[in-house]
Parts: sequence; structure tokens; C-alpha cells
Amino acid sequence: MRPEIVLFGDSITEQSFRLGGWGAALADTYSRKADILNRGYGGYNTRWALFLLHHLFPLDAPTPPVAATIFFGANDAALLGRTSERQHVPLEEYKENLRRIIQYLKKSSPSMLLLLITPPPVDEAGRFEHARSMYGDKAMQLPERTNEVAGEYAKQCVELAGELGLPSINLWSKMQETEGWQRKFLSDGLHLTQEGNAIVYQEVVKVFNETRLCAQKMPSDVPHHSEIDGQNPEKAFKLQCPAI
Amino acid sequence: MRPEIVLFGDSITEQSFRLGGWGAALADTYSRKADILNRGYGGYNTRWALFLLHHLFPLDAPTPPVAATIFFGANDAALLGRTSERQHVPLEEYKENLRRIIQYLKKSSPSMLLLLITPPPVDEAGRFEHARSMYGDKAMQLPERTNEVAGEYAKQCVELAGELGLPSINLWSKMQETEGWQRKFLSDGLHLTQEGNAIVYQEVVKVFNETRLCAQKMPSDVPHHSEIDGQNPEKAFKLQCPAI
Repeated sequence: MRPEIVLFGDSITEQSFRLGGWGAALADTYSRKADILNRGYGGYNTRWALFLLHHLFPLDAPTPPVAATIFFGANDAALLGRTSERQHVPLEEYKENLRRIIQYLKKSSPSMLLLLITPPPVDEAGRFEHARSMYGDKAMQLPERTNEVAGEYAKQCVELAGELGLPSINLWSKMQETEGWQRKFLSDGLHLTQEGNAIVYQEVVKVFNETRLCAQKMPSDVPHHSEIDGQNPEKAFKLQCPAI
Repeated sequence: MRPEIVLFGDSITEQSFRLGGWGAALADTYSRKADILNRGYGGYNTRWALFLLHHLFPLDAPTPPVAATIFFGANDAALLGRTSERQHVPLEEYKENLRRIIQYLKKSSPSMLLLLITPPPVDEAGRFEHARSMYGDKAMQLPERTNEVAGEYAKQCVELAGELGLPSINLWSKMQETEGWQRKFLSDGLHLTQEGNAIVYQEVVKVFNETRLCAQKMPSDVPHHSEIDGQNPEKAFKLQCPAI
């Protein structure tokens, strides 16, 4: 009965309910208004995400989600010939995969509000340190992701949103506006710190606030306790909740 | 398709997706395994919660939740003749209301795993300070809740769980085992700090881990990215996700 907002993406979405995560913050903001469902899949690129669509968003769902964030690209942008090349998806295919995801979701529900989020910037020094801390001398000597390449994917994502008239968040640009973004927003050169999560949260809320999904304007599912008459509680519930 | 675990309760549940909240921590633990749905209603007592049952748990739901936490009592235990008396529910009625909630949920799904949680202890000094900070000299001079009375409600809750063979968490007792629980676990004498939330999270996980809802043993909804063959991704998805 409560509207659903789906967060569809890779590890940065999957981890969004950790301490200070943007998913948990959204769930709090939409408390008593909408359910925030985490459909984040660590390591996934857009090519693999396509396989999930029918499973996650069945075409015959009686009440499809009212909105979805689509947040891929960090893995697609992994470089060929480096340690994460398994996850690489060519730039053009990335854009086409995003387009297919959007087309599919619009088919499943034409009114579904879609919000594209670009991959965050990459801090190559931070990635390298992280790899050293994990694998010591066996760590890769060459970066598996670069900020420049991540930026190309971000550009495609924003361009596609523009072509299709959808809102987007250019996280790659946004984060780099702040001095020291490398350590302030990224924990291992790629994933988000609490402050990085806060940026995503703020940007998502900013977009949703301009739509019918503005949390403050959405109705609560049942009466606020202050509306309940202690002597005659039935009254407040009559319309929304047939009593047991 | 993903199993649902519902958190049904008052403000301590409603606020459980705030920073460090026990609901968000559960959502992270059950990431890719189960959805954690927040059905917390600030200010509600068990009497008012009864009105929500048909609304929140329709009897004809095709896939009812697999589990629910039932976490009421903090408002029921508000004292008569004091500032929160509107919310007061007599001790015997509290127990009977909990029983009705359980009977209803078991009727909606006989296999639903139910976990009762008692109200937390009350720090009367903390409540008073909080009231002073909110209302200044107009603050109540007499406590609207006492720890002793909260303890009586906790006892009824645990007793009922025992009668019905259900698991329960005696949060009232558990928190008081730690020296300085008043400030360590409670932010305003009643609601939970991050450390207080951590206690609830740990205790809920401890109970669920002894059941079929042990997160580590539950299957993920779709393949882990490491199981996907970059050259032949279809293979990993064949069983779970018919490709688009």
C-alpha cells in the first residue's frame, strides 16, 4: 500500500544502508510515506544489470515502484587489461545499456520517476593504497580505474538523461567541486564515506522535492498520533484503516 | 520476491533508520536477502496499533512478511494523571492487545516469525531534562513515565511471549545491565542513542540467527558478481533471472 522507491545500482547502492548511508537516510526521510527498497548489487555493471530487470521489476506487478534511482558506471568504467577488466563495459555499450534499463522500467510503469546518477570520481592514489592494504606487494601496479575514464562514463550518463528528458545527478562533477574530495567523500578511492553518502542523499532529495515525491508533501499512511482522540480513537482510523 | 521483515512499533521503531539506527543496520545485514520494512508509528500505543493491523497486514496478501518485530509499550506505560496520559493503556489491556496483535499476525500467516521486544528502561532525570529543554518552566514537574512502571509492562510482554512460545527481548532488563545505561543508551530518557540502537540490533540478530532467518545462511536473490562469467554471463542468470 505504501509507494515503493527502488534504489537500483552497484555496490555504492548495496552499501547505502551502512552507517550514514544515503539509502538509510532516504528511508528515514520517507518514513511513513514510502518504502525505500535496496536493489544494489556489488560488482555489477550495466551489462549484468540487464539480466536482473525481469526478476526485479516484473512487467505484471500490480503496484510497480513509483520511482527508481539508476546508479551504475563505477564498474563499467573499470579499465581493460587491468585487474578489474572482467567488469569493463565499453562506453557506448554503457550508454545503450542504461537506455535499455530506462526503456524497460518505463514499459513496466510509464509513470515511474527515474533518476540517473553518474559514477563518483575516482581517486587513483586512494585506490592504490586500498589495493596495497588488501594485497600487499601483489597489489596491481597500474590503476584499474582512472578518474578521467570515470568522467567519460559520467558524461554519457548525463547526456542520456538529457536526451530522454530525465533528471540526473552528476556525482562525478559535484564531488570534485569540493577541495579534498578524494578523502572527504571516498573511503578507498571509489566507495563513499559518510560525507560522500550525504552528498548523494542531498542530491537525490533535491531532485525528488521537485516532483510529486516531495516527502514533506506526501500524505502519511495512517493518522499521526496527535490526531487520535484518546476517548474515541475509532474516529481517526475510520477512513484509512477498517478496525479489527 | 524478496522476503519481507516488518518492524512494527512506536517511535523507537519509526526512528530506527536514523543515523546508527537498528532498522538501517538490519537492512544492511539482510542486504540482497530480505527487505526490512519500517512500520513504526511515533506516539502509538497497543490500543491504537490494533486499528492498523488490517491496513498493514491484509489477510489476503499473496506473500505476507516472513517475520515481524512487535515493539510497543513505551507509550502504553505513560502514567495516568500526567502530561502523556492520552497514551496510557492499562497494564492488563497492554498484554491483551499484544496478544491480539500476535493472534492476528499468526492468522495472516501461520509461519510468520514473531519477535516481541519490551519497552526500554526510562531515565526519569533524562526525561525531565528533555522536557525542560523543550518547554522551559512549563515543563511537567512530575514524570510522565517512570522506570518502575515501564518495567511492569516489560514483564507482561516477556510473560506473554513465554505463554505463547515466542522469542522476546527484554530490553528493559538488558540495558540496565550496563553501568551508565541512562545516558549511554537513551538520548532523552526514553529514545535510543546510537549505542542504544546497537543493543536492539544485536539482540534482534541474535534471535533471528537461531531461526531460518539467519542472514548468513539465507540465499542471495541473484548471483554474486564473482559467479558471473564475463564471457558468458547468461549462464549465471539462467535459473534465477530469465534474460530480457
